[in-house]
Amino acid sequence: MEKVRPGTPEARVLEGYIMSTLFYEPSTRTRLSFESAMARLGGTVLSTESAGEYSSAAKGETLEDTVRTVEGYADCIVIRHFQEGAAKRAAAVASVPILNAGDGPGQHPTQALLDLYTIQREIGRLNDIKVGMIGDLANGRTVRSLCMCLSMYDNVQLYFVAPDVVRMRDDIKEYLTARGVKWTEVTDLREVAADVDVLYQTRIQRERFSNMDEYNAARGKYIIDKELMSHLQRHAVVMHPLPRVDEITVDVDSDPRAAYFRQARNGLYVRMALLKLCLADR
Amino acid sequence: MEKVRPGTPEARVLEGYIMSTLFYEPSTRTRLSFESAMARLGGTVLSTESAGEYSSAAKGETLEDTVRTVEGYADCIVIRHFQEGAAKRAAAVASVPILNAGDGPGQHPTQALLDLYTIQREIGRLNDIKVGMIGDLANGRTVRSLCMCLSMYDNVQLYFVAPDVVRMRDDIKEYLTARGVKWTEVTDLREVAADVDVLYQTRIQRERFSNMDEYNAARGKYIIDKELMSHLQRHAVVMHPLPRVDEITVDVDSDPRAAYFRQARNGLYVRMALLKLCLADR
Amino acid sequence: MEKVRPGTPEARVLEGYIMSTLFYEPSTRTRLSFESAMARLGGTVLSTESAGEYSSAAKGETLEDTVRTVEGYADCIVIRHFQEGAAKRAAAVASVPILNAGDGPGQHPTQALLDLYTIQREIGRLNDIKVGMIGDLANGRTVRSLCMCLSMYDNVQLYFVAPDVVRMRDDIKEYLTARGVKWTEVTDLREVAADVDVLYQTRIQRERFSNMDEYNAARGKYIIDKELMSHLQRHAVVMHPLPRVDEITVDVDSDPRAAYFRQARNGLYVRMALLKLCLADR
Repeated sequence: MEKVRPGTPEARVLEGYIMSTLFYEPSTRTRLSFESAMARLGGTVLSTESAGEYSSAAKGETLEDTVRTVEGYADCIVIRHFQEGAAKRAAAVASVPILNAGDGPGQHPTQALLDLYTIQREIGRLNDIKVGMIGDLANGRTVRSLCMCLSMYDNVQLYFVAPDVVRMRDDIKEYLTARGVKWTEVTDLREVAADVDVLYQTRIQRERFSNMDEYNAARGKYIIDKELMSHLQRHAVVMHPLPRVDEITVDVDSDPRAAYFRQARNGLYVRMALLKLCLADR
Repeated sequence: MEKVRPGTPEARVLEGYIMSTLFYEPSTRTRLSFESAMARLGGTVLSTESAGEYSSAAKGETLEDTVRTVEGYADCIVIRHFQEGAAKRAAAVASVPILNAGDGPGQHPTQALLDLYTIQREIGRLNDIKVGMIGDLANGRTVRSLCMCLSMYDNVQLYFVAPDVVRMRDDIKEYLTARGVKWTEVTDLREVAADVDVLYQTRIQRERFSNMDEYNAARGKYIIDKELMSHLQRHAVVMHPLPRVDEITVDVDSDPRAAYFRQARNGLYVRMALLKLCLADR
Repeated sequence: MEKVRPGTPEARVLEGYIMSTLFYEPSTRTRLSFESAMARLGGTVLSTESAGEYSSAAKGETLEDTVRTVEGYADCIVIRHFQEGAAKRAAAVASVPILNAGDGPGQHPTQALLDLYTIQREIGRLNDIKVGMIGDLANGRTVRSLCMCLSMYDNVQLYFVAPDVVRMRDDIKEYLTARGVKWTEVTDLREVAADVDVLYQTRIQRERFSNMDEYNAARGKYIIDKELMSHLQRHAVVMHPLPRVDEITVDVDSDPRAAYFRQARNGLYVRMALLKLCLADR
């Protein structure tokens, strides 16, 4: 997908196909990358930036009815919703493919796929890797999904580095243990940095905190800066689902091991592949 | 139009043409179906989801000025406005075709066309039919337009079934009588269901009621559910302009006589035909 | 660019290319004309009508990070921002072309280009012209930019006609004087109208006034109406960046010397040329 160029037959493989985005929650990044993926393959997009606010939802229409209507206008639907299970409910009534672009505290499967794709591209393998996950591990949908995905590979070692109030939850820990994935909770970020292949940093989400003192303490605790990068192995990379605030300092951006903008771009390729799979290869 | 497939010459008939949507009022359904129609024929869309909020309107620009500007950028304009007559005002100054996608309490002509198209497809004729209209007949733009359209056909019999506060208004009744269309007001929905070819249900619009008790009484009065469907003739169909709230129960959806999602899809075909007519066949 | 027609090879010169709009400030006119320009050349648009509200910006992401992400999805980015210098900051980190569609009180370069293009087309030259600028000359970004652009031509004579509170600022006056451009401040609009090749009217921006009495006085002071048009030379034209409120009366619209809607349309051609230059001609 990275080799698709304007004007080539590959760039027209979805010509005439229509993808509709139904975003009940804002997400510029995910929406634009899905829309770009469709456009890169010659397809067309019907866009709804804020479905909840404008659409029939305001008049009391159910998600199921909206989906059954929109499937009349599009060949596939990309849905982002604030409720867990929304994509599943949509898929249950739809006759066109539904792509889950995040369902509240539930899953964000295309993010997990692009994370795996990025690790494979950057490190060269998905087995036999050590991954340090940092930041808001309690609420971070992406790290939770990534843990589950990594459990399918062999000899994966996970390190969790989180402020106390947002530690990785027991459900994931038990899931990993049951599948024989080694994990440990660590407090020294430098030690982890020196040992891992991937440092996966996440944003402390202000909106999860009722107490601003707690937020500020959590937020400043684990920062990746130039000094920390000096501990990282030469082949290792730093990833981040973005957006970032200050948990990675901007002077790290120029380090070749800063993989987060490449990671964002990989979202495009992964979504191109998914759309081709759903529409052209059926 | 239902036979247009990706990759065929029919799917490129509007290639290079641009349609702009100017929606001063939200309407996901109508907007997406117009945009899909344009895309299905190879055309491009410039979309404005909420023209009133973002555009120059906020700076005091008149609708006429907006239209004279946007016509410089597009080959046709689809306009949805909260004021009656807005589309007519736009058409008066425009040098490109203006398509009325609903002008406040005025008209919604493409909805009326898709309703006619649906009756023709489902029942096989537009003459010699019996149609029951249910719900908010006072404010429902679609039933008012449909009455006027049906008056062009022969031997049409209409039944109006509405809560007292939202009965069909005199202007339409007089219009029908003057054109020799038979109409009667009925209170027993079952009796009507047993007799008609088409049951056209509408949503009781909460925003029209100042008194919530009245709203709730009106809202629960005429529901189409499985029991009522047992009275409907085998060849008859249930239509609804959507969105629905609970005036048709979801267990009716699987009944083959539930035509409302097919009706929504017909909006696509009717709008494809209109766009082709306005742009390619001129 | 005015001769590009649907279905011709010129109309496909940007096929497969993607332009993303990042609008942190509403501007229907500018956004639609950029999007139309891209579509007229066969390109695709990823649209963000209100980037500030929906995007990661709300989560604390910097403009630089947003740009580095979006450049992964698009071949060029059109940015409109409320802060002066935003486009420059974006360009500093971007690997794709950034087009400035207005950066707060800073510049609006594509507007200045279309203004020049319009004068050239309407009057036939950019040297040896007399231009009267009217209205809010203190805050009007377009007149300020136009002054600077016109200073590159020979023998340009400028007249400034503004209410006291919004007179042209010293920085521009000094800029012009330093470059040998003749300018004078005048209070009699009729006298100016009789002398110039171009009357460039602007809107008094209500949002700039804290005192509504001052606003109303400023607003009504210099109106272009039919009577005033009788003083204008036969070959001269009236321009306006739009939107207008009442500073040009609508009965002037039908006068062939009213060039403002043609001017708006020229924005399309100028932006087509810019996009082709940035993407296809590199």
